[in-house]
Amino acid sequence: MKSSDLQSASEIVIFGALGDLSRRKLLPALYQLDQAGLLNVESRILGVARQDHSVEEFTAFVVENLTEFVKEGLNEAVLARFVNRMVYQQLDFKDTVSYSNLAATLKGGHDTRVYYFSTPPAIYGDITDGLKSAKLITDADRVVMEKPIGNCLESSKVINDQVSRYFNENQIYRIDHYLGKETVLNLLVLRFANSLFTNNWDRNSIDHVQITVAESVGIEGRWGFYDDAGQMRDMIQNHLLQILSLLAMEPPADLSAESIRAEKLKAVKALVPINRLNVKEKTVRGQYSDGYLNGLPVPGYLNEEDANQKSDTETFVAIKAEIDNWRWAGVPFYLRTGKRMPAKHSEIVVQFKPQAHNIFKESHVDLPANKLTIRLQPDEGVELQMMNKIPGIASQMHIQENKLDLSFSETYENQRVVDAYERLMLEVINGNQSLFVSRDEVEAAWTWADSIIEAWQTSNEAPKAYPAGTWGPVASLSMIARDDRQWVE
Amino acid sequence: MKSSDLQSASEIVIFGALGDLSRRKLLPALYQLDQAGLLNVESRILGVARQDHSVEEFTAFVVENLTEFVKEGLNEAVLARFVNRMVYQQLDFKDTVSYSNLAATLKGGHDTRVYYFSTPPAIYGDITDGLKSAKLITDADRVVMEKPIGNCLESSKVINDQVSRYFNENQIYRIDHYLGKETVLNLLVLRFANSLFTNNWDRNSIDHVQITVAESVGIEGRWGFYDDAGQMRDMIQNHLLQILSLLAMEPPADLSAESIRAEKLKAVKALVPINRLNVKEKTVRGQYSDGYLNGLPVPGYLNEEDANQKSDTETFVAIKAEIDNWRWAGVPFYLRTGKRMPAKHSEIVVQFKPQAHNIFKESHVDLPANKLTIRLQPDEGVELQMMNKIPGIASQMHIQENKLDLSFSETYENQRVVDAYERLMLEVINGNQSLFVSRDEVEAAWTWADSIIEAWQTSNEAPKAYPAGTWGPVASLSMIARDDRQWVE
Repeated sequence: MKSSDLQSASEIVIFGALGDLSRRKLLPALYQLDQAGLLNVESRILGVARQDHSVEEFTAFVVENLTEFVKEGLNEAVLARFVNRMVYQQLDFKDTVSYSNLAATLKGGHDTRVYYFSTPPAIYGDITDGLKSAKLITDADRVVMEKPIGNCLESSKVINDQVSRYFNENQIYRIDHYLGKETVLNLLVLRFANSLFTNNWDRNSIDHVQITVAESVGIEGRWGFYDDAGQMRDMIQNHLLQILSLLAMEPPADLSAESIRAEKLKAVKALVPINRLNVKEKTVRGQYSDGYLNGLPVPGYLNEEDANQKSDTETFVAIKAEIDNWRWAGVPFYLRTGKRMPAKHSEIVVQFKPQAHNIFKESHVDLPANKLTIRLQPDEGVELQMMNKIPGIASQMHIQENKLDLSFSETYENQRVVDAYERLMLEVINGNQSLFVSRDEVEAAWTWADSIIEAWQTSNEAPKAYPAGTWGPVASLSMIARDDRQWVE
Repeated sequence: MKSSDLQSASEIVIFGALGDLSRRKLLPALYQLDQAGLLNVESRILGVARQDHSVEEFTAFVVENLTEFVKEGLNEAVLARFVNRMVYQQLDFKDTVSYSNLAATLKGGHDTRVYYFSTPPAIYGDITDGLKSAKLITDADRVVMEKPIGNCLESSKVINDQVSRYFNENQIYRIDHYLGKETVLNLLVLRFANSLFTNNWDRNSIDHVQITVAESVGIEGRWGFYDDAGQMRDMIQNHLLQILSLLAMEPPADLSAESIRAEKLKAVKALVPINRLNVKEKTVRGQYSDGYLNGLPVPGYLNEEDANQKSDTETFVAIKAEIDNWRWAGVPFYLRTGKRMPAKHSEIVVQFKPQAHNIFKESHVDLPANKLTIRLQPDEGVELQMMNKIPGIASQMHIQENKLDLSFSETYENQRVVDAYERLMLEVINGNQSLFVSRDEVEAAWTWADSIIEAWQTSNEAPKAYPAGTWGPVASLSMIARDDRQWVE
């Protein structure tokens, strides 16, 4: 990818600099980039928030949070250089006039400004207006927005419209941090640098795909946001469709943002619509009830503290997604994601077709098929299941399935795992949009998700209960079992 | 494979029981089978040789050689059981009448007799005649013969005719010990139990194949045999064509001897003939000259002790073999084998085609292709080269070729490597011919080899000299370089 901009000086402006995302992810990510020599010496970091703080107070806040969240420990010289970049600006986000103060604080002589909107989406429009009125937007500037954008197609359009009044699409970086994960990026290398996979990546060779994103936590008190959103908007429309589109897209002509985003969009657009006619067959909605996790009792969703006791929000979704194109006709992509599942466990399983003919049937009636497993959480890794002869004389053709570690964790064990936000921040600074989601793709994803949500609302069925600490409602097992398949555990 | 005969009692009769093969390989292999509980308690082992020995003397000879050649050490109880099976019979192989003595020694009440011809092929006919005259051949009996059979098509026909006067083809087990090697057998599992390989095993996916069998030893004083045979008859016609036929054969319908032997035969028959018109382009003949091995000077072939100083026998052969069928049109199989090469090193390399299109060209102008390497010597093993993203942020798409150990040596490190002769002896006892070479295949292999040898003789060119301790004549590098490829080192 382009690295020619590496040396360009940016001012990185974080709106909502005192918030959770900033503390846990953005500031540590910028620190790591600084340590790696990937921040221009002139680049400054401006914290912006409603509260009144001196730059010394903000710096103390930064140091405190780096100390807590940079696992590897801090290097004194890097820290000194890093805090020296800090500037703080108090701002009333909704008061357009006050942005002149921000303008006064921003230095000239920088090639680009990176505006990171780490605030609720409802005020993205206000910030954009304020920046415009203070003449703080040039064609070189960039804006970074956290997904999900909105909570349906219409609300996402409102937000995107507000921001795109003064920023062009090529200046807007919509972040889905799953696209910054090492193993998700490795998907591109695995698929397109290995002919053994490239030649087998279609309906002729692949039986089905499973994408699981399981969390062990419950709602964690996020009643304000989560109970309105639910697992469909929070996870499926968001992270799972991103993974699906990278897995399913046609090979892009090159690694440019234009090519990759065009192919991802086509994949999402080719998703077979799910509506009131087929929603019962292709989806399962669940909500956790009282149960046990690691042997300890945990309350059901409706019994959580401050629960909305009439909520019918789903905390679990399973979907049989299908893609209506030449490559994937007849190959289901089974998606499932839920809260209060037995473990934090996210993985992609690409299940290849069984051998058409089994010459080893005397010793192995069911010959296991090749299987590629990409683990995202808790540890990132890639495994390939292949069949191999077991050495020994007892039986001439004693075969065993063996897992090959394709992530070479041993080879790379001294390599620090780069956090997704580090990589994505660097890509923003370098002006490369390929790992960010286009407006078209956001809208295609909402279109598909909205149809499912509408069908659920029309059916008026409550989500199926599943005890906390299990893999979701039994109906999820039945959905895949009807196809004579099963979830990989 | 069938194991129903496992319990049948055989008498195993070794002709040439005092010879080198018997001492080093056959007796240790039988001991290991006994230790593994794979020899029927009633089975006896009859040593037959010209020399007069008591059974006690023969038993002492057996113990002495087991002590020397069973690396893992001997188990007293197993050894006691094993030597108790020993019988010895002096025999003048050419004296038909004397076989009545053998008949007297052989016990009745056995299901089968296994006659192992561990003698020069010139007397296979005499032994067969003797056995017949003493009425020692029934339809249940088996005969095992070492390859190579003869030294050309005609002489192989003479030997096969002599033996097949009284043994049917389904009683004749022609041994090529390469077919008993763990990794050679694993070829069948890799090819036919993994769709990732099955779907990629043809001209669409494979660029070329290399088979190297390099020895570091010289002639080792075998002037009587080797100088007449040369590397072509001793190695190419023999072991290398066996490997080639397993790699190239069409998928057999099942693992039966009939299916496997039929497919192997078709592959050998489809070899494009090499004759005086194309022999210069497709083959290289070499003979080692004075050189250095591991820093020590070693004499050239013509300067070895007792050398035939006018010899133009080749000690190195490289061949570009081609297979004229749908699967392999345009895919060369490069064969090379030689003595006095830098190391004992035998391997098969299946080089897949490079990606048709390289989307990683900004960081990797030449994207290495997938490659499957099967090592036969000095250690057996299987490796798959795949491309993987290197973790880290410095470059988004930093790719590295990594070797995956498909032989799982760690998984199986406590497993003793079974010697090829153990496995093949067991297969003979069990009556399974799939790992033995059919007469048709022997004759097809000689037909192809004879044409090359005849073309060399017609050209009247001396073999090209290569210094001992090198990878053969420069012409071998040129042969493959003309195709824009190179030997894997």
